[in-house]
Amino acid sequence: MHKLVVIRHGESAWNKENRFTGWEDVELSEKGRAEAQKGGKALKQRGFSFDVAYTSVLKRAIHTLDYVLTEIDQVWLPVHKEWRLNERHYGGLQGLNKAETAAKHGEEQVKIWRRSYDTPPPPMELTDPRHPRQDPRYRHVNPKDLPNAESLKDTVARFLPLWTDKIAPRVRGGEKVLIVAHGNSLRALMQHLESMTPAEIMEVNMPTGIPLCYELDQDLKVIRREFIGDPEEVKAAMEAVANQGKAR
Amino acid sequence: MHKLVVIRHGESAWNKENRFTGWEDVELSEKGRAEAQKGGKALKQRGFSFDVAYTSVLKRAIHTLDYVLTEIDQVWLPVHKEWRLNERHYGGLQGLNKAETAAKHGEEQVKIWRRSYDTPPPPMELTDPRHPRQDPRYRHVNPKDLPNAESLKDTVARFLPLWTDKIAPRVRGGEKVLIVAHGNSLRALMQHLESMTPAEIMEVNMPTGIPLCYELDQDLKVIRREFIGDPEEVKAAMEAVANQGKAR
Repeated sequence: MHKLVVIRHGESAWNKENRFTGWEDVELSEKGRAEAQKGGKALKQRGFSFDVAYTSVLKRAIHTLDYVLTEIDQVWLPVHKEWRLNERHYGGLQGLNKAETAAKHGEEQVKIWRRSYDTPPPPMELTDPRHPRQDPRYRHVNPKDLPNAESLKDTVARFLPLWTDKIAPRVRGGEKVLIVAHGNSLRALMQHLESMTPAEIMEVNMPTGIPLCYELDQDLKVIRREFIGDPEEVKAAMEAVANQGKAR
Repeated sequence: MHKLVVIRHGESAWNKENRFTGWEDVELSEKGRAEAQKGGKALKQRGFSFDVAYTSVLKRAIHTLDYVLTEIDQVWLPVHKEWRLNERHYGGLQGLNKAETAAKHGEEQVKIWRRSYDTPPPPMELTDPRHPRQDPRYRHVNPKDLPNAESLKDTVARFLPLWTDKIAPRVRGGEKVLIVAHGNSLRALMQHLESMTPAEIMEVNMPTGIPLCYELDQDLKVIRREFIGDPEEVKAAMEAVANQGKAR
């Protein structure tokens, strides 16, 4: 039986402002830092330790991981920073808040972009200074693999090679892997692990900063999953996740 | 022409208490954190950026690197945590303060351990729970390579394979490398780069938190070296380094 722990990064400055963040490299807010530390303390209390960690190349995830590793006293752990764990690329919407987006593109269109599995938002221009092709952190990535905008389906497609080629073999080999990433890259992982339909994964939202522990069999099929933390908060988070479909 | 930047971690809790730290995984003090941030700001002001970073598996160095990367906005940089960059292993002295050590072993003996290039301190017992063979962070290291105690000469010997096999080829290949490490692992590097004798390197103490930039030719011979920071502080640090021989 294998274990895999995943954590969604804590609140960032832009989550707070309700802006489309995507690949913008926004720092954690104070609340986000506290969420990360709490997640780390919960793992420590349950005696978790790891052999390797994966995260994105975005600082809100990397710093969440740092806080977690500090709490479980594994700052020395090898950490792989992988662009394929980045948040969904929001294209031309990045940096806009909900009101600005509705004013620019109309409420109906925004709903489609937010709720559709396979409709990408408008692309970011290749000449935009924020385009990944202009960013040194992606200079070793084939430019053809770098998105201008992504639907959730696109995010799943670019995440999967990382899982298949690098992470899954480690899990299968008995290594205890920790993944700290983003709402949509974790949806990509959950959809794959739990064999969800597009409609199902669209209804799932990971709570921030609460570690989710998967127990997997030798074929990496899910035996069970458990949120790690204060029972009251875990219950509230699970209810919130379960109700997300209904609320909409 | 190649550039290489090295930084010695800021003050740790045990530096303050004047205890032999070695491979004990002690956290930065408040002052140490401030030193690290200052070093990062100095690099930022001069427009430094890097392709890859190396540090030890000890949190006072890893966290110093984190503060520096945050300041220069390169949190996404690939970081290699290498045991061969650890501080000199102080064997049976680790955890003792100067007064305790003098009481236990005599002042004269302590002087020899501190000033000799090739006399290791008394070994740490293999059964000591703090011995590296008991520590999961070293489980991939051949146990024969793990020290019980090190002279500076021993530290140089275990550092050099990392330089020769991994770091030097990157520098030669044009990558901009940042190394954040410890007083004695950086002495090992400096002795090698600057072709110093044992007597010479024993007289050198790197200032903490002040980046040192080496300019190297294609054979990795030193063209010049420069401390990066506030001119007054750099001057004071350089004079302190120059006077260390005289003060003793």
